[in-house]
Amino acid sequence: MTGKIWGMGIGPGDPELITLKAYNRLREADVVAYPAPEVGDSLARSIVADHLPIGIKEYAIRMPLVEARFPAQQIYDKAALDIEEMVQQGKNVAVLCEGDPFFYGSFMYLFGRLSESCPMEVIPGVSSLTASAAMLRSPLAARNDVLTVLPGPLDEDALRSGIEKSDAVAIIKVGRHFEKIHRVLSDLDLLDCARYVERATMENQRILPINDLEDNKAPYFSIILVHKRGEAWTV
Amino acid sequence: MTGKIWGMGIGPGDPELITLKAYNRLREADVVAYPAPEVGDSLARSIVADHLPIGIKEYAIRMPLVEARFPAQQIYDKAALDIEEMVQQGKNVAVLCEGDPFFYGSFMYLFGRLSESCPMEVIPGVSSLTASAAMLRSPLAARNDVLTVLPGPLDEDALRSGIEKSDAVAIIKVGRHFEKIHRVLSDLDLLDCARYVERATMENQRILPINDLEDNKAPYFSIILVHKRGEAWTV
Repeated sequence: MTGKIWGMGIGPGDPELITLKAYNRLREADVVAYPAPEVGDSLARSIVADHLPIGIKEYAIRMPLVEARFPAQQIYDKAALDIEEMVQQGKNVAVLCEGDPFFYGSFMYLFGRLSESCPMEVIPGVSSLTASAAMLRSPLAARNDVLTVLPGPLDEDALRSGIEKSDAVAIIKVGRHFEKIHRVLSDLDLLDCARYVERATMENQRILPINDLEDNKAPYFSIILVHKRGEAWTV
Repeated sequence: MTGKIWGMGIGPGDPELITLKAYNRLREADVVAYPAPEVGDSLARSIVADHLPIGIKEYAIRMPLVEARFPAQQIYDKAALDIEEMVQQGKNVAVLCEGDPFFYGSFMYLFGRLSESCPMEVIPGVSSLTASAAMLRSPLAARNDVLTVLPGPLDEDALRSGIEKSDAVAIIKVGRHFEKIHRVLSDLDLLDCARYVERATMENQRILPINDLEDNKAPYFSIILVHKRGEAWTV
């Protein structure tokens, strides 16, 4: 009579980029849980809004979405207790995660708390990494390329070192770190090999030349892809 | 009257891990093209076999699948000419790609040849990278981790250098390079942090302790994930 948890990646933003598996399990779920801001709508919920079955119970995990501050652990402690209780009552709970659950995903905070106590399946999703490459029409990596994923909050030395040893780089969570990243790429003479996209596959996606950002301000959901073979390389 | 090309990621192997977008475009396509061995069935085609509309025309791109030899360029030259002709005749062509097209994907060989001459949409897919993490129940990376993707054919120094500078590593295309990779991980005292999966999400998926491979032989579609926080880290 125990239920289970599906930790599901729902893709980068385009509702059509959810997998059949996530779609099908969502239709079978008793409860859908998702991260949300303290006030207002959940981005994750909005991605699957058209796929939610009528009458499904909703559970919002509300937290301050302050950039570069990691989520308050006590909020996840509470959410984990609530979800565990639902599972013990026999409910199947779909936990939404933008992108992929195990690629810098918010679901990991619940996975760590619940994977021992609840039956759980992790459903991979399309990550913003490959979605950004598709939107930029810019391959990430091929053949024996070394590809490094660097979070924007890293300091300049860490960014430089990560870029130097790689053929291809994806810098994620650019946000307010844009100026620092731009400086590092400029120092390494790699600006011509860099491409910028924000909110890939979402309705308000923007692709801009990397030198054209107003006030050098980027949203949290932005990515810079660099390939040392240049901007328009192919195999 | 011109048709178009959809270069579509179809995911790592489980037919349910295709996106709604790839599924929907496949139902609208006039032709489905896919890589195949010189003789026998195409793995990519088998993943979507249940989704193919009745009467769709099929076009197999057949080539010697010799591990670690990159595909013969003249085979892609010929396939590109054939597909371009179909598009000029008004056909919509779905080109299948295991995993994601721009993450070490076979579609890049056609992208480079056809992106200027044919209308083309690239549809991202679930990569083997995140699918492997889900199957291993082992997060890839979180917070400000540096994650590096290293192809198995790299030499020992390149592997060692890539691992040393990262928090998390995914070694792809392990195949006949398993012994070399195992030696590097052993030298770095990281075997306890490493997890191995072959053919993630396929029917014949296997997860083994990294010291338990018979004769140290791994198939081409195998991945080793390493995280320096250990085997069972969480956030």
